[in-house]
Amino acid sequence: MGGEQVEGRQAVRELLLAGRRRTRTVMIAKGLDPAPIVEHIVELAREQRAAIREVSRAELDNTARTDAPQGVVARADPLPEVELAELASTPQAGAVGGRRPDGVPLPDGARSSGSPLQASSTGRDRGPIAAPFLLVLDGITDPGNFGAVLRTAECAGVTGVVLPRHRSARITPTVAKAAAGAVEHLPFAVVPGIPAALRTLSGHDVWTVGLDAAGPRPLHELDLAGEAVALVLGSEGRGLSRLVAQRCDVVASIPLRGTLGSLNVAAAAAVACFDLARRRP
Amino acid sequence: MGGEQVEGRQAVRELLLAGRRRTRTVMIAKGLDPAPIVEHIVELAREQRAAIREVSRAELDNTARTDAPQGVVARADPLPEVELAELASTPQAGAVGGRRPDGVPLPDGARSSGSPLQASSTGRDRGPIAAPFLLVLDGITDPGNFGAVLRTAECAGVTGVVLPRHRSARITPTVAKAAAGAVEHLPFAVVPGIPAALRTLSGHDVWTVGLDAAGPRPLHELDLAGEAVALVLGSEGRGLSRLVAQRCDVVASIPLRGTLGSLNVAAAAAVACFDLARRRP
Repeated sequence: MGGEQVEGRQAVRELLLAGRRRTRTVMIAKGLDPAPIVEHIVELAREQRAAIREVSRAELDNTARTDAPQGVVARADPLPEVELAELASTPQAGAVGGRRPDGVPLPDGARSSGSPLQASSTGRDRGPIAAPFLLVLDGITDPGNFGAVLRTAECAGVTGVVLPRHRSARITPTVAKAAAGAVEHLPFAVVPGIPAALRTLSGHDVWTVGLDAAGPRPLHELDLAGEAVALVLGSEGRGLSRLVAQRCDVVASIPLRGTLGSLNVAAAAAVACFDLARRRP
Repeated sequence: MGGEQVEGRQAVRELLLAGRRRTRTVMIAKGLDPAPIVEHIVELAREQRAAIREVSRAELDNTARTDAPQGVVARADPLPEVELAELASTPQAGAVGGRRPDGVPLPDGARSSGSPLQASSTGRDRGPIAAPFLLVLDGITDPGNFGAVLRTAECAGVTGVVLPRHRSARITPTVAKAAAGAVEHLPFAVVPGIPAALRTLSGHDVWTVGLDAAGPRPLHELDLAGEAVALVLGSEGRGLSRLVAQRCDVVASIPLRGTLGSLNVAAAAAVACFDLARRRP
């Protein structure tokens, strides 16, 4: 899975806020301009007894593996993995995503307030525990796309992500940064093969929906409200493999209305995740 | 507007396919591996009597302003601008997007076939001319986000884009490449100020919908089928300005169902554009 090095302010703050794995060290560049989010990171790191190291900008940039670590790099235990069968079962209250741990209130201004795209209050009430809403990523390789897809999935309320052990990017610092902390909240299952995983999901009454240009039905016309569902995305270049498409209960497409032939995979994932999210209880 | 330099295979091919502006020169790096898309670019450039220059990889990379021009850089006339009032009127048949010019058939394999995200055949029939579907971008500054939003908008069938003259990224090579050719098909209007433009749109019976975290209504609950509509997005950091939000007929949000506080602007644009597209005739 990876995930041991986390870079960038938002990603490191979410690492500490989620508290799902132990943070060992937080490195902060000397001479950063004061910012509420950096103060918040230091405060959380102290509470969790992570080592806080003030280092030179040069040392931090040498340590970083992303272009813009924003003066903050953390080292933590690897991301935990869960069993596929666990993802396929109806999540327990509090087990997935959910709210902040009670002991960690957010100081005013510490969130990226004023963003056009923040959660509205209406969207933050999760309501009753819903059926599993899984995302199966069969071979997305670009780290920026991978991270963007994870961020969007978390925002859409995806309850678990399924990755193939061999044909997927690991959770590198670039992926984690693009995911803006989503990797701290999403449960991941890593499987030997996607076709077998789809069979397992079907055995747990999870409806498997492949997304493909050749999908005969528009995604938004599927009747999926309330169902346990797994959305299956192929790789950027080749799409769903034939075997994976065959194993899906249905293969659907996003109808395009312009001249270009394809959406970027991160955009397609956003459209599809929120199309399913909109119809969930 | 900009747009005079276009880099990357997909962007250059769309420049030539759209044929909306004159392509002066196409530079191709010597020693490229054979690829149908490169052959197609050369064929289109010949047809349009653009100069074709084979240059060394070093010269091409020196000329390029993006990281990965993929061995192809073109120079063309600037992107055309249209009047806002024209965008606000019901588009004429063939004036917007539309199909390929008849004389330019696509050779087999020249499109990025096999992508998971290509247009399905159901989505390519545009059907009867619909009411305007505009996107107003008030101050998106990151070129990657800007290009991604334009690509998604074109795929969703957006009929025109409104940009502020002063607080927006120009169509740089990076924007055009991220847009994957969308800039060749989208009509653009550049306006002195967004608040005044929203008033003009209202005067043309275009319903203006701001997207903001504080929007009191979920976007997907708005009843907009068949209406002329303009979706208004603010900047990455600050969202809709107060004046712009006040001028919108309605301010709506995308309900989030996870723990993270915000979507990336490109993901939010994808969700919103396709949510509106889904409900258009």
